[in-house]
Amino acid sequence: MDEVTFAVLGTGGIGRRALEVSQHKDALTPVAACDRHGVAIDFDGLDVDELLEATEGNIDNEVATDGGTAASEGGVKQHGEELGVVASEQARPSEDSIQDIIDHGDEIDAVLLALPNYEHDFIPRTAERFIEGDYSGVMIDVLKRSRVIGMLDDRREAFEDAGITFICGAGATPGLLTGAAALAAQSFVEVTDVDIHWGVGLKSGYEDNRGTVREDIAHLPEYDIETARDLSEEEIEEIIDDHDGVIEFEDMEHADDVLLERAGICDAEDVTVGGVLDVYNDEKPTTTTVRVTGRTFDGETATNTFQLGDETSMEANVNGPALGYLKAGVRRNRAGEYGVFGPAELMPGF
Amino acid sequence: MDEVTFAVLGTGGIGRRALEVSQHKDALTPVAACDRHGVAIDFDGLDVDELLEATEGNIDNEVATDGGTAASEGGVKQHGEELGVVASEQARPSEDSIQDIIDHGDEIDAVLLALPNYEHDFIPRTAERFIEGDYSGVMIDVLKRSRVIGMLDDRREAFEDAGITFICGAGATPGLLTGAAALAAQSFVEVTDVDIHWGVGLKSGYEDNRGTVREDIAHLPEYDIETARDLSEEEIEEIIDDHDGVIEFEDMEHADDVLLERAGICDAEDVTVGGVLDVYNDEKPTTTTVRVTGRTFDGETATNTFQLGDETSMEANVNGPALGYLKAGVRRNRAGEYGVFGPAELMPGF
Repeated sequence: MDEVTFAVLGTGGIGRRALEVSQHKDALTPVAACDRHGVAIDFDGLDVDELLEATEGNIDNEVATDGGTAASEGGVKQHGEELGVVASEQARPSEDSIQDIIDHGDEIDAVLLALPNYEHDFIPRTAERFIEGDYSGVMIDVLKRSRVIGMLDDRREAFEDAGITFICGAGATPGLLTGAAALAAQSFVEVTDVDIHWGVGLKSGYEDNRGTVREDIAHLPEYDIETARDLSEEEIEEIIDDHDGVIEFEDMEHADDVLLERAGICDAEDVTVGGVLDVYNDEKPTTTTVRVTGRTFDGETATNTFQLGDETSMEANVNGPALGYLKAGVRRNRAGEYGVFGPAELMPGF
Repeated sequence: MDEVTFAVLGTGGIGRRALEVSQHKDALTPVAACDRHGVAIDFDGLDVDELLEATEGNIDNEVATDGGTAASEGGVKQHGEELGVVASEQARPSEDSIQDIIDHGDEIDAVLLALPNYEHDFIPRTAERFIEGDYSGVMIDVLKRSRVIGMLDDRREAFEDAGITFICGAGATPGLLTGAAALAAQSFVEVTDVDIHWGVGLKSGYEDNRGTVREDIAHLPEYDIETARDLSEEEIEEIIDDHDGVIEFEDMEHADDVLLERAGICDAEDVTVGGVLDVYNDEKPTTTTVRVTGRTFDGETATNTFQLGDETSMEANVNGPALGYLKAGVRRNRAGEYGVFGPAELMPGF
């Protein structure tokens, strides 16, 4: 496949790491990155090292209000006068950095939405802005929220008309793990059970991943996206302390189920997702494992298993797959396949 | 994706099971099947149950000479007057059944070459016949021979000019397992080691899989494709007896290495393939395992692992993936991507 240009919306932990990981492959050229404060665009390819170095410690993890003008309260550290991405010499301040990217959309093959913490409809509404701005290309998110997928599906026809291929949930979970489930499902003519159990140890990565922790807390039974969004950093840390740093999730609401169902792998109700997040240790509290149980054409029942090495960080498991699905999405887009796709739908399968 | 029509060349174990497994999914319609004795063609879809039932015990496992007219010597059991596929009421005898399929190529999206035992250049030469017959579509094999891939690559331009998408090695090994390796590689920016170790127990499936056993024997250090092809059934059984039914392969010549290298996953020399075949037991002598070791962007070394459930038969692990890759190939073909592809190249990846 020819060179792929991509933009990153959001330069928090996921956006920064996506830029960094893309440096390891030739065929991916990051050409734009933005946060709410500004935008960096260079169609010869961003100087990722400069951008990451200049903005180190400038990570914008705060929660946006609708207008995107919430005051910084600790999430973004200042670097001189400058907030977030603007600390890079490649960036300039912008009052509407997303529009700046849309305005250059004809030179951007794919847009990675690395915005984990906004309202449910933030990503669908952002996608609508790209439609209105005549963008045609790939949009990709790394969310794990079933409801967002439904909202994107509601816009399927608009994506098709615009020529947009929207890939949703393309990080580690559900992305990599539902992809593994789709692969493992190929031994079977009927999949009866998919069990996804993840472990994340986050001590040294906590600062870079506050947004993801907040997202996870939203999946605890006592919280939802809205209430989690309203928590202060102090409240988040209190919740973590209350759990001695280890938060367990059982049968959580997670988009894996709907993504596997839409890929034709199994019924959503046959998918179980749980996990353990340890914020105080880097070591994973449990080995991330996908178990796919099914019936073979010759009548046997068996379980295929995929396990991630405990030493792989969440960041490594988010960003490699996200960029892989991004490239797979570009291939689909160039072939004229538009609409909404989950990662498992991009896998070979029958 | 719309309906996919496909033909099966060869109705030995692999061809028969591919037909059977395709029945479990709606979007795949088998429209043609042949062996050297005859051909069955029906564009409304073959009656697979009738075809399999009528030809049960008629499996043609013998080794073809170049002209394809070798006398039957036990490999094909007769059913009345009729040999092989001709025992089905849907089939008719043919002196050149492959040409019959080529002549109907414009209605066939994909051709599965289920012919494990012929000469090295049999599949490349068969592909050339399809090129000469103006076929444009997908051709797919389930071989594990590196040399054949090189011979197909030599014909890449001819495939591109013809509009043929050739998928090679798309069974269990290398197909499913290199696909798993490609998936597992996504955590890493550099893959340092891929270790593929398979186990097959074949007691009840031996009759249906003589061809595959012969193919495996060709990978023992003392044999090659030519010498294995010349072995009589009795000699094959002697070799099996000499090994007490359990044949171990270490660091075998296997196309996994070249297929992973061409997909950009790792260097061929970093791939190790071995396995254990137990012809006397159905139970797998070892659990089929793929281990992918690499370095993450953040400097850790780890191993991701994929394991097949011991109860999954070789047939289940060949035919599901083969049909999955077949469909993925049709998608590529419809998008105008022609040439030669390994299974790992059909996976999302960056």
